[in-house]
Amino acid sequence: MKAEVIAVGSELLTPSHVDTNSLFITERLNELGIELQAKAVAGDDRATLHAVVTDALRRSDLLVLTGGLGPTDDDLTRDVVSEVVGRELEYHGEIFEAIEKRFAARGLKAPEINRRQAMVPRGATILKNVNGTAPGLWIDHDGKSIVLLPGPPRELKPMFIALLEERVAHAAGARRLFRRLLRVTGQSESYVEERMQPLYARWLRAPVKIATTILASLGQIELHLTAVATSPDEGQRALDQAVDQVRGALGRDLFSVNGETMQEVIGVLCRSRSLRICAAESCTGGLVMSRLTEVPGSSDYVDRGVVVYSNQSKIDLLGIDPHLIETHGSVSNEVAEAMAAAVLRISGADVSVAITGVAGPGGGTPEKPVGMVCIAAGRRESGTWRTRVRTFNFIGGREMVRFQASQAALDMLRRWLTEDDT
Amino acid sequence: MKAEVIAVGSELLTPSHVDTNSLFITERLNELGIELQAKAVAGDDRATLHAVVTDALRRSDLLVLTGGLGPTDDDLTRDVVSEVVGRELEYHGEIFEAIEKRFAARGLKAPEINRRQAMVPRGATILKNVNGTAPGLWIDHDGKSIVLLPGPPRELKPMFIALLEERVAHAAGARRLFRRLLRVTGQSESYVEERMQPLYARWLRAPVKIATTILASLGQIELHLTAVATSPDEGQRALDQAVDQVRGALGRDLFSVNGETMQEVIGVLCRSRSLRICAAESCTGGLVMSRLTEVPGSSDYVDRGVVVYSNQSKIDLLGIDPHLIETHGSVSNEVAEAMAAAVLRISGADVSVAITGVAGPGGGTPEKPVGMVCIAAGRRESGTWRTRVRTFNFIGGREMVRFQASQAALDMLRRWLTEDDT
Repeated sequence: MKAEVIAVGSELLTPSHVDTNSLFITERLNELGIELQAKAVAGDDRATLHAVVTDALRRSDLLVLTGGLGPTDDDLTRDVVSEVVGRELEYHGEIFEAIEKRFAARGLKAPEINRRQAMVPRGATILKNVNGTAPGLWIDHDGKSIVLLPGPPRELKPMFIALLEERVAHAAGARRLFRRLLRVTGQSESYVEERMQPLYARWLRAPVKIATTILASLGQIELHLTAVATSPDEGQRALDQAVDQVRGALGRDLFSVNGETMQEVIGVLCRSRSLRICAAESCTGGLVMSRLTEVPGSSDYVDRGVVVYSNQSKIDLLGIDPHLIETHGSVSNEVAEAMAAAVLRISGADVSVAITGVAGPGGGTPEKPVGMVCIAAGRRESGTWRTRVRTFNFIGGREMVRFQASQAALDMLRRWLTEDDT
Repeated sequence: MKAEVIAVGSELLTPSHVDTNSLFITERLNELGIELQAKAVAGDDRATLHAVVTDALRRSDLLVLTGGLGPTDDDLTRDVVSEVVGRELEYHGEIFEAIEKRFAARGLKAPEINRRQAMVPRGATILKNVNGTAPGLWIDHDGKSIVLLPGPPRELKPMFIALLEERVAHAAGARRLFRRLLRVTGQSESYVEERMQPLYARWLRAPVKIATTILASLGQIELHLTAVATSPDEGQRALDQAVDQVRGALGRDLFSVNGETMQEVIGVLCRSRSLRICAAESCTGGLVMSRLTEVPGSSDYVDRGVVVYSNQSKIDLLGIDPHLIETHGSVSNEVAEAMAAAVLRISGADVSVAITGVAGPGGGTPEKPVGMVCIAAGRRESGTWRTRVRTFNFIGGREMVRFQASQAALDMLRRWLTEDDT
């Protein structure tokens, strides 16, 4: 099956935007063994879009279009596709009624221009959109399939997943792709690559071949493993075996074997050990707490956090001794440890992380340059608490320093909590 | 001039890779007033690449291809383009000699397969590559121009810059593109579109035409304005005028006229009025503080924040009356206002925001459903403080509810601080 994706929208042809929907669509199609042969971006221009759609449809069996289904004048996808396949648009009252209901739920009246979203090429199937006003459309035409989906990812993703299950899976045949996403932290990409290389060779000779992509991202290295197998059992077994081998090669630097984020890993650890967590943040300004509370259900184990950005707030909220700050500076292992202990004391929580550092771009000195961050973790133990602390020197701009600091803090706690595990 | 870019390489059709070369190329072309009408990615497959190049060439005046110029079997760009334009490949000894020199400089012998990189479609101009072995190629064909460039960015970028200066600039004429990014919040996309429509019509008749793209994203609507003008002065003047007209149409819902984020807008307001800001967050879990402290230099005006995730932490850290929580529930306007006042009291800061709500997916009740968030802002005034509060009902999953809540809180403060401005 030859598949192509077309993303529609002039903003996707500017220097500041990339089409990311096609990545999600590719991943899901790959799982069914369908690879893309090409993809395209077209602007909100009728003639160009007509040509791009016509050309892609000639070459492919499955054409997925994203975007351009909104209510405004520059949303042309519906119109153009209906022209290309020669099926006029028909008004479907039930679509506009659903739109009216959505608006009414917020006490608003649906604008007249939204009626455009109720226009459907003759014979098309309407795909329900639970997160927005624009329905998707599925058109069977000359033995080919054309899918129209809205551009916003939160609308497109659930629609596309439902669609694959209903319409595409059976057409794709027996071999499927199975993927696993692993994450590693605290090591460089080249270190990870060197440790992995003996495995690559072994995996290429295995009965179920496993391909690997290694990808360095902020604060972590990702390993994407892909197996091509004829059954979910066979695919998953091969991947499980591969994960065990990666664990042997990378040890505790491997923190995630099923795509979990660091905050999800910490969540699982807290929940399974009935620990409540708290944080005291200076340069990360709430990023650690924000990451921890991103996880659904995190109120079960996240207790509280303080963002002690100014020195006075460190004294007021945490009772940090002003002399400690004077003697060692607010960016110091001593202050980080005091913060990790104090936030445990004031909260009654069981574990803590604390961060103080120079995120930049200003504020650096020769002794304490931009990127220097002191990170501590704390654990309540039999009526008192213990802390661990380490100074890091992170490379990069403000955003990179902050993210890496939040990652290193959570990772310090992860390693501590799991060091007695076999 | 109609331009298109084609990136060649099967790796660009996987879920983990995006073509970023086209962003650089777009930016440089935009500076000359040339907009892309479409762009595409094609895999390393002869038939598909042939079709994609043929179709794009039919539609456009300038076609830029990147990648597929290496020495291996799956590098097909040279071969395919020579077929499409019907010009056979000729061997250019001087190219291979240059390649031999590059290898010799590292004490190596040039591999025989690199001779493929010395093949040139008849009549093409050779573009020098100082950072790699693959030369670029420029082909004039039927009044159109085709450019072939190597894929690695550090090879492509200097070559493309040189090329523009030598060959494209004069062809593009004197007109250039100027852009402005505006942001609106607190309104739906359709509302903004309806208010903007009269302006679209006016702008199309103006001496300097302005094109608009409207884009709904999380918690805000983006308006991308583009002017085509012959001088920076003329372009900026036209855009300034357009921004004034948008302000007239949208009033204070327009919060950003130069691409600033909400946290940057708040930063400018705090700095210009010498206000220190603090926050008390429950369901957003530190997201407001994290956004505020993303801005370089924010330590000048960000004082502190508390993430009071548990009820006990609201009582401990902010001194919220337990009876207030019992009577009204922790998600209530009363508690939000008490939080906004308390964080001002404990910090000595000048302005505050406070958020308490149900982010979901769990925790909703019929009276307080997922998405219900109570948001308050506070201002210190002559020894005491005033608060404002409002209950919102946000749509979407946990991440959406949290971001919209952080946006609404900062926006509430923005409107309050600017309401006396003319």
